[in-house]
Amino acid sequence: MSKQPSNRATEQPSIAKRLDGIQLSLIRQINALATSESINLGIGEPNIEPDETLRRLATRAASTGSWHYSANAGALSLRKKICERFGCNPKTEICVTAGTQEALYAIFQAYVDDGDEILVPNPGFVSYPTLARLAGGVPVPYDIEPPDWKVDLKSLLSKITKRTKLIVVNWPSNPLGAVIDRETLQAVADAGPLVVSDEIYREIWYDAPPPSMLGMSKNVIVVDGMSKSHSMTGLRLGWIIAEEELMKPIITAHQYIATCASVFSQQLTELIFDAKEWNTSWLERVRAQLRDQREAALYSIEHELQTKIPPPAGAFYTFVPIPACDTIIFAKTLATDAGVLVIPGVAFGKMGEGFVRISFAAPVETIGIGIERMARWLRAAGK
Amino acid sequence: MSKQPSNRATEQPSIAKRLDGIQLSLIRQINALATSESINLGIGEPNIEPDETLRRLATRAASTGSWHYSANAGALSLRKKICERFGCNPKTEICVTAGTQEALYAIFQAYVDDGDEILVPNPGFVSYPTLARLAGGVPVPYDIEPPDWKVDLKSLLSKITKRTKLIVVNWPSNPLGAVIDRETLQAVADAGPLVVSDEIYREIWYDAPPPSMLGMSKNVIVVDGMSKSHSMTGLRLGWIIAEEELMKPIITAHQYIATCASVFSQQLTELIFDAKEWNTSWLERVRAQLRDQREAALYSIEHELQTKIPPPAGAFYTFVPIPACDTIIFAKTLATDAGVLVIPGVAFGKMGEGFVRISFAAPVETIGIGIERMARWLRAAGK
Repeated sequence: MSKQPSNRATEQPSIAKRLDGIQLSLIRQINALATSESINLGIGEPNIEPDETLRRLATRAASTGSWHYSANAGALSLRKKICERFGCNPKTEICVTAGTQEALYAIFQAYVDDGDEILVPNPGFVSYPTLARLAGGVPVPYDIEPPDWKVDLKSLLSKITKRTKLIVVNWPSNPLGAVIDRETLQAVADAGPLVVSDEIYREIWYDAPPPSMLGMSKNVIVVDGMSKSHSMTGLRLGWIIAEEELMKPIITAHQYIATCASVFSQQLTELIFDAKEWNTSWLERVRAQLRDQREAALYSIEHELQTKIPPPAGAFYTFVPIPACDTIIFAKTLATDAGVLVIPGVAFGKMGEGFVRISFAAPVETIGIGIERMARWLRAAGK
Repeated sequence: MSKQPSNRATEQPSIAKRLDGIQLSLIRQINALATSESINLGIGEPNIEPDETLRRLATRAASTGSWHYSANAGALSLRKKICERFGCNPKTEICVTAGTQEALYAIFQAYVDDGDEILVPNPGFVSYPTLARLAGGVPVPYDIEPPDWKVDLKSLLSKITKRTKLIVVNWPSNPLGAVIDRETLQAVADAGPLVVSDEIYREIWYDAPPPSMLGMSKNVIVVDGMSKSHSMTGLRLGWIIAEEELMKPIITAHQYIATCASVFSQQLTELIFDAKEWNTSWLERVRAQLRDQREAALYSIEHELQTKIPPPAGAFYTFVPIPACDTIIFAKTLATDAGVLVIPGVAFGKMGEGFVRISFAAPVETIGIGIERMARWLRAAGK
């Protein structure tokens, strides 16, 4: 044990091992190629701006609300409103978080030990395997198979071992837009390990509202929020619902990660819960607009890219096969050469190889132009 | 490797080892004893409400600003304003975070590996040793000695070993109100390991503005924000300033922890930076009010508790010796019997044993009544 100060001031301090191999996501890399002229079909939030009512609610929150700390788990008044809607105990079964990213992060930190296995969807949201690694865990992908992107339940269950700590499910799925039927979800809930159900896209559906995993088992932790359905990703507010004993360590982790969610964001969310009628019509408007854009995307995919894909049941993503391409090179070249941004499918896992994620959170004309340029580029490249 | 689902659905899943022994802080435990009649001298933010200008800025941010994601490191326009003020490169040397708690958390996650030693002030802010443990590190306290709460530089430097990864400094100090002189700070900056300088209370001073560690060495990471000086702890916005290479892994960690800070909070902060004249007068008002409250606290401490303590140079805390008491029992009994909330000194480390933290972020009368009740209770207990 040296009693002398070391000379490390001149060296670069070593970065924590948990960050080994973890870099800015491919999504961020592609988005970094965007210019003001780009046709952006890589967007992860609805192309919808707040209406007058939402602005008025926000102004009210800003002009009258408290700006002091809330309880770590969120203001009790907000927790009551969320629980009234979802049927949980506001004192013990909910934690309001600084967005669903922080929600997922806190859950992983609360439960994942070195070497624990985390079942993650493949293709699936890019954060899940990284969150597993950051907590010392090992992501174990379970396949979701084309062309209709159904979870192969038998295959998923066969991947459960004694080391399996969490199963992550997400539907409507980013990047697939697919949903999972109630029976499959119930079977996952009953499988044994903790289940984290990421339901952030649940209000964005086109034919029927997808089922929630809430209450399917004591082992289920639900993550939700309004950032996607209300096109307010900058609000950084989400919530976690789980049974009391499951929740305790999550709140402890959350306290040290973030203290509490933005209190302005909590107050605005509370006002939105109060504005029930407006909220219903807002969600209908969001679905109607995204439904039109979905039609435009499916039309262009069929007529320009000559591919028919199953219509996404929720969220605002299509996952489109691009034959005979390295999709990373394809997406990067497309961004620089044609000014069209799409996300390479492999960003979401190995099963995504050969696909790109095309978001239809863009105006109908933009979608048409973007996919047409994409098709032209592919034809020129002889694909 | 079992191919069958386990039966763990009936058991409680094991909590991650990193949470072993980590519970809600003593501060939260004491605050949980508060009733609406309590005299609260345990408060960690100024007893100041937003003025008309601040409300107007917030309303403007809510009614006109974007609600979409910002860049992970924060909106460039905000980063520019912070860097204009503090002299950093907005593109590479700053990261806006979801509060300074998240800032500290991200720094620890970016740099601390299992077994790394973290020098933390003793007494010091309760989160530092916990953040060290959550990242797998070992907190190594360095003593700050009564009665004048000076850092013993020789003792601090003697604790540096090959395993020392971070040195945390915080001044004006929570819980001491003490500051550190420039020479000592420079010596810490030059000692070798990374230094995290938590400067969240830096704008709250009474005689002269305390020095910043910004630019003292390439190894210094500064954490700052407006939540204390502007009495907006609910805003959940802070920032980290460090040299580019140091910053990179911090931004990567921050991306997966929180994505970005609340965009409303970012916009409000930007508007505050723009309102330079108002900001100067606001800070003067905050200091003037807290200075009056400091005088009231020092007077009551001297005349009721019969103790003379050095006047705190910054923040809004006094650290007061309570002779012959287990301060945890004392604080809990005082809360329930006398309805007065103070924080036991040992919450901040072993060196705090025998002290309590009395916050003067309360009206002058409240401070007087609280300390008088405390003195009466001590006399009745024969202390």
